[in-house]
Order: sequence, then structure tokens, then C-alpha cells
Amino acid sequence: MDLETIQHPGFLKSLSRKQLDELAEDIRSFLISKLSVTGGHLGPNLGVVELTLMLHKLYDSPKDKIIWDVGHQTYVHKILTGRANRFDSLKQFQGLCGYAKRDESEHDVWEAGHSSTSLSAAMGMATARDLQGEDFNVLPVIGDGALTGGMALEAMNHIGHEQTDLTVILNDNEMSIAPNVGAMHNMLGRLRTTGGYRRTKEDLEYFVKKIPAFGGALSATADRLKSSVKYLLVSGIFFEEMGFTYLGPIDGHNFDELHSNLTYAKRTKGPVLLHVVTKKGKGYKPAEEDASGAWHGPGPYKIESGDMIKKSGPPAYSAVFSDTLAKIAENDDRLVALTAAMPGGTKLDKFAKKFPARMFDVGIAEQHATTMAAGLSTQGMKPVFGVYSTFLQRGYDQLVHDVCRQNLNVVFGIDRSGLVGGDGETHQGVFDIAYLRHLPNMKIVIPKDENELQHMIHTAIVNDDGPMAVRFPRGNGLGVKMDEELKTLPVGEWPVEQKGNDAVILAFSTMLPIAKEAAAQLKKSGISTRVVNANSAKPLDEKQLDQIADENIPILTMEEAVLKGGFGSAVLEYLNDQNHIGLQVKRMGLPDRYIEHGNPSNWYEELGLTANEVAKTIDEMVPRKKQRA
Amino acid sequence: MDLETIQHPGFLKSLSRKQLDELAEDIRSFLISKLSVTGGHLGPNLGVVELTLMLHKLYDSPKDKIIWDVGHQTYVHKILTGRANRFDSLKQFQGLCGYAKRDESEHDVWEAGHSSTSLSAAMGMATARDLQGEDFNVLPVIGDGALTGGMALEAMNHIGHEQTDLTVILNDNEMSIAPNVGAMHNMLGRLRTTGGYRRTKEDLEYFVKKIPAFGGALSATADRLKSSVKYLLVSGIFFEEMGFTYLGPIDGHNFDELHSNLTYAKRTKGPVLLHVVTKKGKGYKPAEEDASGAWHGPGPYKIESGDMIKKSGPPAYSAVFSDTLAKIAENDDRLVALTAAMPGGTKLDKFAKKFPARMFDVGIAEQHATTMAAGLSTQGMKPVFGVYSTFLQRGYDQLVHDVCRQNLNVVFGIDRSGLVGGDGETHQGVFDIAYLRHLPNMKIVIPKDENELQHMIHTAIVNDDGPMAVRFPRGNGLGVKMDEELKTLPVGEWPVEQKGNDAVILAFSTMLPIAKEAAAQLKKSGISTRVVNANSAKPLDEKQLDQIADENIPILTMEEAVLKGGFGSAVLEYLNDQNHIGLQVKRMGLPDRYIEHGNPSNWYEELGLTANEVAKTIDEMVPRKKQRA
Repeated sequence: MDLETIQHPGFLKSLSRKQLDELAEDIRSFLISKLSVTGGHLGPNLGVVELTLMLHKLYDSPKDKIIWDVGHQTYVHKILTGRANRFDSLKQFQGLCGYAKRDESEHDVWEAGHSSTSLSAAMGMATARDLQGEDFNVLPVIGDGALTGGMALEAMNHIGHEQTDLTVILNDNEMSIAPNVGAMHNMLGRLRTTGGYRRTKEDLEYFVKKIPAFGGALSATADRLKSSVKYLLVSGIFFEEMGFTYLGPIDGHNFDELHSNLTYAKRTKGPVLLHVVTKKGKGYKPAEEDASGAWHGPGPYKIESGDMIKKSGPPAYSAVFSDTLAKIAENDDRLVALTAAMPGGTKLDKFAKKFPARMFDVGIAEQHATTMAAGLSTQGMKPVFGVYSTFLQRGYDQLVHDVCRQNLNVVFGIDRSGLVGGDGETHQGVFDIAYLRHLPNMKIVIPKDENELQHMIHTAIVNDDGPMAVRFPRGNGLGVKMDEELKTLPVGEWPVEQKGNDAVILAFSTMLPIAKEAAAQLKKSGISTRVVNANSAKPLDEKQLDQIADENIPILTMEEAVLKGGFGSAVLEYLNDQNHIGLQVKRMGLPDRYIEHGNPSNWYEELGLTANEVAKTIDEMVPRKKQRA
Repeated sequence: MDLETIQHPGFLKSLSRKQLDELAEDIRSFLISKLSVTGGHLGPNLGVVELTLMLHKLYDSPKDKIIWDVGHQTYVHKILTGRANRFDSLKQFQGLCGYAKRDESEHDVWEAGHSSTSLSAAMGMATARDLQGEDFNVLPVIGDGALTGGMALEAMNHIGHEQTDLTVILNDNEMSIAPNVGAMHNMLGRLRTTGGYRRTKEDLEYFVKKIPAFGGALSATADRLKSSVKYLLVSGIFFEEMGFTYLGPIDGHNFDELHSNLTYAKRTKGPVLLHVVTKKGKGYKPAEEDASGAWHGPGPYKIESGDMIKKSGPPAYSAVFSDTLAKIAENDDRLVALTAAMPGGTKLDKFAKKFPARMFDVGIAEQHATTMAAGLSTQGMKPVFGVYSTFLQRGYDQLVHDVCRQNLNVVFGIDRSGLVGGDGETHQGVFDIAYLRHLPNMKIVIPKDENELQHMIHTAIVNDDGPMAVRFPRGNGLGVKMDEELKTLPVGEWPVEQKGNDAVILAFSTMLPIAKEAAAQLKKSGISTRVVNANSAKPLDEKQLDQIADENIPILTMEEAVLKGGFGSAVLEYLNDQNHIGLQVKRMGLPDRYIEHGNPSNWYEELGLTANEVAKTIDEMVPRKKQRA
């Protein structure tokens, strides 16, 4: 059918089994075709076609609440709720969001981009329902990987206790983004192999009846045995122990199994966990056979061959990060790398190939990773936690309480800082300076390019004076020459990139090229602008700030991060504390709002982070008499 | 024995069983006597006397790493490691810390005040050991309550996967601070009742041998049955599923059981969980019989009678918080209260008495609580999460990603903000303004007294424009008259407390009385100081700041919170953004370091947050010509 004609999922109710099969095929073709141009989360969405169809067929969205954990697997849901016509703009500036978005549709009842939030959200919605005396179903759909996130387990513990009426759909595709790690993963594997509850139920009931016939030594423990028989009857002991009725595992691509089990779950009171086994990339061979995880969220690709369209260019910052760690690790036994389920994204999989015993993928568990790193450091190791800026937010308390308070030598390789593009507001790495800067003992360095990145990492590793964060952006480096020898850089001494006497721009990372471009423009107007690579947000280069204050020239700070509490704010604090008052300072950076998806360059334009705006701002600050043009 | 003569736990090795009994008794008498004067965590420490003795007898600290989760149960450990002579100064300014403290002793290998960190720390230490080829034991001691914290479960999942060699001591006293909630708690209860693995092992082995004798319908599932028999052999299925060898439950006050089980654990490779059941308050009747949790961390008390020495005074801020919620809830069905295992501390137990169905204790699970509140809000409820400032740090990502990003009407009742006294650096509520202020959509209000608190809570509940945090300090209110009728206060309009034309102090909460005292001093020198109750840190009272800037008088900001990124920083940002340059502004607040335990008044003195310092600072800022004295 023409998917773009779909307005509401209600039409599914009357579809026959055959029509469903056809629709599933149409949706797969649509996704494979559309995403070959835009890129997007192909693998996860191909995996949930049948599941999404059956959820919308059996339940009444938006009255019933389907809550997508993470939200990158909502494409099928978007198609069924009237958004097929917007897929050409997927993840692009002002285009269709790659995650659930409440503004987009009444069927998006919850937004997420970080994993493991759906059970808590579901508990909140179901509790509200019960308190208000309403009647609807609550269906969080959560991946097996997301279950390793502590907050999902916190929620499960609470839901099991309260016996809240909801149905958790465990979408078990045997991997989150990377293949899963963790004892829970092994457990799910055992469940998959040993088969489900209902298949063996009859056999086992026969067995139970036999029990009283045992005698002798057993009589003493007969009662205990009887209660233990439950363990024989039920596969999902773990979930049963948590207070859930466990159903499954079932084939998530089989409409009949989905139908009968969801119907059963609907009738069952209290919390139910339905274990659905799906295959990531189902129906598209290259994605099905994907072992490396590249088809989790590919860029554009050729449909026939499955070749991804590669952009050539300088090495990615992530790759430089990983390679530098490997280089240092050759001579430094203390170095250990950690990732929270992001070995591919952080490129630490490259490090792991050389040093498999010294890389730990802890699962989606940033809290644990942060504190495990602290523990490693107490024993003289040099742990490096490679983590996206947005995900380190999950480890904030562990930074405050474990790492910084004990002043331990933990290095944070903060990837995807600043604006991240297509993933948008749930993933923006824009709060990090504000949430790290006020932590005692923390240092924050921000290299301007991939060469400075490698030296900064080296600097962080040799540092033995507490925690240090090395903050770098998403994407490729600038293509600069890489020094052979790693250097220790002085932290808190900002290099002057370009001289100038009329004004000074303090900028770092992605903002530096814009600053330089503005300086070139200003030069034409006769304004000589100094450009400083402010490569540490903490400590500041206090000496240099004192000198600038003595010169009494206008200062512009630039940061791809929130302005409130950020780098520019730190500069204001310092200048004020030193009684350098009366100076002209302007701060450019991100405003006090969430920034949606879209190419950073679109957002620079939208938010005025451009060479033109910089030049205009400086021009207005520089006294007329200094302007010679 | 004279406990003050103990220097090192090595002496325990040669003690007989009888001597251990005597020592345990001496330690109990010592704790009961010392804490009757200083107050402190009596209940938890009386519960771990035998356990601590046996750990130090069988293991070699500090080579072997005993890691105390939370750390408030380390008093016995402190006595055995040479610190008995410092108990008169427990939790006091510059006195003995109430938690583990690495500066105090080489036996304190890990510091904590927040729960659930010990397993991650242990994993880090054990991993470092294995990588370095060293040989020592790692023994995290964690309470059953702390297991509900997501990060403990994250760690368990990872440890089980890696099969790291360590022994988790699960100190199960059937409550954390409050009686525990959660499915895991129920599970532990079942384990306690059904008895342990080893007790029934022989019986069950007999049973296993019988299995092949079954025929008929069973033959098809024989393999599955064999593997399922494991469930009959082991009680701690949950832990076994997580990859741990489960031992217990054993009596934590029985030296023999502790001895044999710890010895067995020591020999067992891979992760072991030893389930030890203890009684909080053991050996002191009033504490043993404590149902309310008052003996968890009492103040001074009379030993004979067990009467706590009550300080009379105005109502505690926490009580006003809870009572106000109850008052509002009478007429507003939408109001729901949440606590993360702190019903007593937050006084929400009072609310729960009136509205048991509308109060949720989620366990030590701030992440879940924050996002569950978000979920409740999506359905039109008015959730209020009562939480200590320091513990809300655990919910930072959920604030960023779930609550503020979706702009949901969640109210945070932030208790224990500012300096907290005896609990010290792990518990200081000093980062909240810095970690909340940069979140889009968040409002932060800070009442000056208990009367303003009740109005602020009302204001937050009626607000329907996103999240709001109401931040209030530990301890009692000021004893002001409470208005009968609740009012909606304008947010972002700071009341002028005292007029004045020469300088202005912008202060809130605990800093206001100091500001007023300073203003009185300054009046004597002829300086007329305005005192403003800056009762919202976000939004600022921009109109008033503009007016002050127009007056061009010196400004002093005061805050019991970190200066970096804090309230004063917000004032600097605003004034600079509005081009109000050349103003004299000074910021007083907390420096960039962790603040240890001790009475806030001691710290005010130490850090210069006194009327004298304020007066001196203002005096230096006010131009001489304005000074008439």
C-alpha cells in the first residue's frame, strides 16, 4: 500500500493476516529505500516491524500508551501514525525527528534518546491512571541492552513491588548497539535456548504431581521443594523474582505468536514481561549479517550491494582518541580503557583489538563505569573512560562523590561534545562544561584539532593530580599534520593563534575556525583581532586574562556549549573576582533552550555563531577611534 | 579491654572465641556510651560488630580491601584501626569523620556517603589487582537497601559477566534507613524464610539422583530439567542468575557461622555473595526495638532510658514541606509525593499517613523517582519529589533528558541544601544551583523562612509551566508566624527586605540573617545597605537588577552554594549581557573545594561568611565620599 496515505493506526484492526504480511513487506522496502538516502537507525527499525504492527493492531494508541525506550526504533510507529511523507527529511534540520517527539504526534507519549527510561515513565503513567481511576494499557518497549542500565532495574524493582498493571515488551535482539555484555545478557541467552514456559508447562505439571511421592530424606524439605517447583515451571526466574509474570521467549517476527501472547498479557493483572526475540536488520541481508554494528545507524548506502557510501576525509576524533590510547598503552601498563556499551562509537574497539584485557565494556552503565574507574585509580591504574558528553550526564553523581571528591586520577575522553547533528536534542553534548566546571579538582581541556587531541590525551595520562576531562567534538578532525612524538602540554596556558591588539577572541574547538574567519573579515575593516585557543575551560589561563585586562581591550568568548555556567561565565567570574571591572566582554554560545536535530552548520547560522556575527559583535565593541577604516 | 590502646587490627588474629565475645561487648558499650553524647549512626554500627570483627580477624587490612558501602557503619572498623580515642569529636568540626575517610587511615581504602558505590569500586580494585598480577582479597560490604540503587545492579551485572574474584558481603538488616521497599526486598525476605543452600544440599542431591528415573512425558524435557535442578539446589537464584555464587543466609551475629562462611568464600573463585542477616541496633534495646528508624542516626540520648534529648524550637523545614503538601493535597487530587528511601528524613512519612495511596517510596533510586515523576506529569498529575540536594545529583541526567527537556510539571522539594553539618562532604547540598541553573525550563526558588517555604510550595504546585525546584536547608525554620492561607508568589521578583541606598546585598535563605546583621553594622558606619531576598536563582529578578545597575551602587551576592556557576555567577552573566559594565560586584559563597563535616556556623567562620566579613567587603566597595562616618 501507499504508506504516505496512512493517517492513523486504526486501519490495522481490520487487516487480515495476509494483509499484515504485505504491509510488513511494504514498510521494509520503504525503510530500506528512504534510509539509503538519509541514513538512520535501519537495523533496529527493521527488527520491530511485526512487533510495532501487532502493538498498534491490538491496542488503541494514543489512549493506550506505547512507550519506546531510546526511541530510535520508532520509524515504523511513525509510518503508522501518519508521518511516512516526512521521511525524506529524517534527522535533518527542521525535518522529521529520529526519535519519538511529542510535538510531532499525539501517539508519541514519551520522548527518549538515552536508554532505560521507559520503565520509570511507564510506572508514572500507570500510577497516574490508577489514581485517576482511568482505564488504559501501558506498554514500555525496552531492548535487552537497555536493561543493563541501572535505572531500568530500579524501576523494575519498584514495579514488581507495587504490582502495577503494565506490560513490558522486552525486545531482545541479543545486542544493544554493540553486542551485549553482562550477566543479564547471558541469562537471556539461557532463556532463549531452554525455551519458554508454556511449551513445557504440561510436562512439568505432571512432574509436580509426582513430588509428594518422594519420601525419605526429602520429607524434611517437602515444603521448600513445593515452592521451588515454581522454578521448574517458569523460565524467567530472574523476572519472576522481581515480581513480574514472565512470558516467552517468543519469535518477534511471527504475527501469530505476537498476537496470542499480547492477548494473554492484556488479560493478566499486574506487571507482565513479554520476552520477544527479534533480529536486528530483519529483511535486509547486509543489515541482518552485520556483526560489527555498522547497520545500527548507517549513513547513506547503495541498496543493491549494501555498500555504505563512505565520505573520505581526515581521521575521526574518536579514532585519534583510541589510537593515541593504544600508542600510550604500549609503554604504560597502567592504562585501562572503559566504555559503556559504545565500543564502536568511541572507536575503543580498535584499542580493544590490541589490548583486549585492558578494555572493559560495562554495558549501558555510566554510573558503574565512572566509579569502577575511580576504584581502578585507587590502585595506581590509569583508567580512561571514553564516553559521549550526553551520556556522562548519567555519571554526574559519581563524578561529584567518587572521582572528584577523592581526587582520583581518572581520565574522561568526552566524545560528541557540542552539537551532534542528526541525533538532536537528546544527544547534544552541550551541558558538559557547565556540569563539570563547578566540581572541585576537575580539569577540562579542549583540543583545537586532532593533533592537539593526541597531546592532550598524553597530558591527561601523565597527569597525577586528579581527574581530567578531554573534550572533543563528533566527526572528523581538521586534517592537520600529526606529530610523531607525544607531548605534555601545559594545562591552563592558552596558545595565541593569531596576534592582534584591538580585541581578543577566546574560543576553542569548533569555534576557533569561525573566530579566525571573523578576524580575517575584521582585518579588512582595520580591526586587529587576537585569536586565542582557550584550550582549557578549567583552569583558565589566569595570567593571560590578567594581561588582557591590563590592555583593556574588548573580549569575546565563544563556546559550542550552554552559556549559563559555561566557559564565558568562568571568564566573567575570574575577571570580576580580580577586580578587572569596566571591561567589555561578550559571550557567544548556546542559549537557554534545547537544540533540536540538524546539521551543526544550520544551527550556527540559526543561533548566530557565524563569522559575520562575530565580526559584527567585535566591531561594535571596539572604540571608534581605534578603527582606522 | 581499653579500646583506645588498639593501634592495628592484627591483634584479632590471636583472640579466642571468648575474647571476641568480650571485645564485641566492650565495643557495644563504647559505642552506646560515646554516641549518647555526640549522636551518630548507632543502629547500623551496633549491627555490624561481629561482622567487622570477623572480617578484620580473617583478612589482612589494608592489603585486603574492605570497602564499606555508604560508610556510616565504619565505627567498629575505626575502633579496630586505632581511632577509638577520637570518638568524642565524632562528626564535629575538625573531628573524626562519620564515614570512611582515606586521610584518616590506610585502612579506609574507599570513601562513600552515598549508597551503592561499593561494588563498582570493588570491581575497579579487583580488576587492577588482576592486571597487576597482585594477590589480595576485595570485600565490599553492602546493605540490602543499597542494592536497590541502580548502579549496584549495574556493577553486579558486570561483575557476574567478568567473573571477577571478590566477595560481596550483603548486610541484610531488612531495612536501609527506612524499612525497605521493592521486589528485591521481598526476595531477600523469601530467602531468609526458606533457609540456605547448604542446609538442604544433601537432601537435594538425593533428589537429583532420582531424576533420571522419571519417564513418560518427562523424557522430552529431561535436559531442561537437569539444568533446572540448579534452582532446587540454590536459594539465591537471583544472584546465581547474575553470575554469583550465593552463600547464606547466615546469622551475622554468630562468630562461628561468619567464620566458616567467610573461610569458604575465601576459597571460592569468582564472585561470591555472602548473605549475612544482622539486626540493626543489636545489643541496645531501644535501638533494637526501633520501628521508626529514629535510632539509625540519633542525636544525643540518655543511655538508661533510651530517651532522646530533644531540642525544642521552630518546626523543621522538612516538616513544613510535608505538612504543606498534605494541606494542598486535601483539595488537589493531582498531588503525588515521591521519596527515594527517605520517608523519615524528608518527613514525607507524615504526608503518607494522611495520603497513603499518594506517596511512593521507590527505594534508593533517584533516577527512577525523577523519571517516574516525569511520567506522572505527562498524565496531568502533580508529582513532588522530596529529595536531599546531594542525592538529586543521582538524577541529573533524568533532569536534563526527561523532566526539563519535555518541560514537565514536576516539583522538586530539595531538602538539606547548603551545608549539612555532621554528615559532611559526601552530603553537602552545595552543587544544586550550579547543576540546575543551566537546565532549560527549570526554575529554582529559595524561600527565606518556613512561611515563605509553604507559599513557595503552593506556588510550585499551581505552576503549570514546567519543572520547579524549591530549595530549603537542613534543620529548623526561623520561628516566624505561619500564614493561614497559602499564597501564590511571583517567581523572579525579589522582595526588598531592608531599604538602603549605598550598596545592595542579594542574599537568600541562610545567608539573609547574616546580610541583615552586616547591614546593621554598616549603618553604624553611616553606610545604608539594602538587603534583598533573592528568592529565585532562576529566573533572576531582571527588572530589579536593571534598576540597581542604573543606580550604580555596589552589589554583594551571597550564597551557601558553590560560587562556580552559582547564583552570583548568574548575576554577573545577566549584568554583563545587559551591558551593565563597570559595576562593582562581589560574590560570597563556597570556594572550589569539598567542605568537610562540622557545624555550618564553624564553616561560615572558616570561610568568611560572617557579618563582619560582609560589612568589611561592602565598606571597601562603597566610595569614600558616600561614607558619612
